[in-house]
Amino acid sequence: MKFKGTVTVWLKEGIFDPQGAAVKGSLEAMGFKEVEKVRIGKNIVISLEAEGAAEAKDLLEQMARKLLANPVTEAYRVHVEEEKAGAER
Amino acid sequence: MKFKGTVTVWLKEGIFDPQGAAVKGSLEAMGFKEVEKVRIGKNIVISLEAEGAAEAKDLLEQMARKLLANPVTEAYRVHVEEEKAGAER
Repeated sequence: MKFKGTVTVWLKEGIFDPQGAAVKGSLEAMGFKEVEKVRIGKNIVISLEAEGAAEAKDLLEQMARKLLANPVTEAYRVHVEEEKAGAER
Repeated sequence: MKFKGTVTVWLKEGIFDPQGAAVKGSLEAMGFKEVEKVRIGKNIVISLEAEGAAEAKDLLEQMARKLLANPVTEAYRVHVEEEKAGAER
């Protein structure tokens, strides 16, 4: 079966996010005074083959731990769904 | 009221994603043969002040169009929720 996994990775609270700070500065300079905080993370969308959703989730957790997230500075979340033919992403 | 908006930005289908291709290559080299495709997008989490959810969403749509996404190569989605005190991110 084909699955689509999404691994969302973000910097832990307390870790400075220079990219987020830059975007916040730009938004303020453009007149968006309502903005209080900006944090930027990654969204890694992985199409994979697995026996079932549990196996797919287990594989994605391993990928996140071993490669996709830096456990010292980043936190992550894994979401799995069955891949639909013709889905947008 | 305080809101937490999430703008998810990803490369449109058909636009080459070099970062995704590099991650796919690394995962394969690490033995994850199940991986068929990897696409990497951004997750921009913005805390902001607004009168209500509709205004917050409207502001976030403007930010996405004007700064966060490149309309030629990228697609985006905006999600808004009311900020809870002490929330994780």
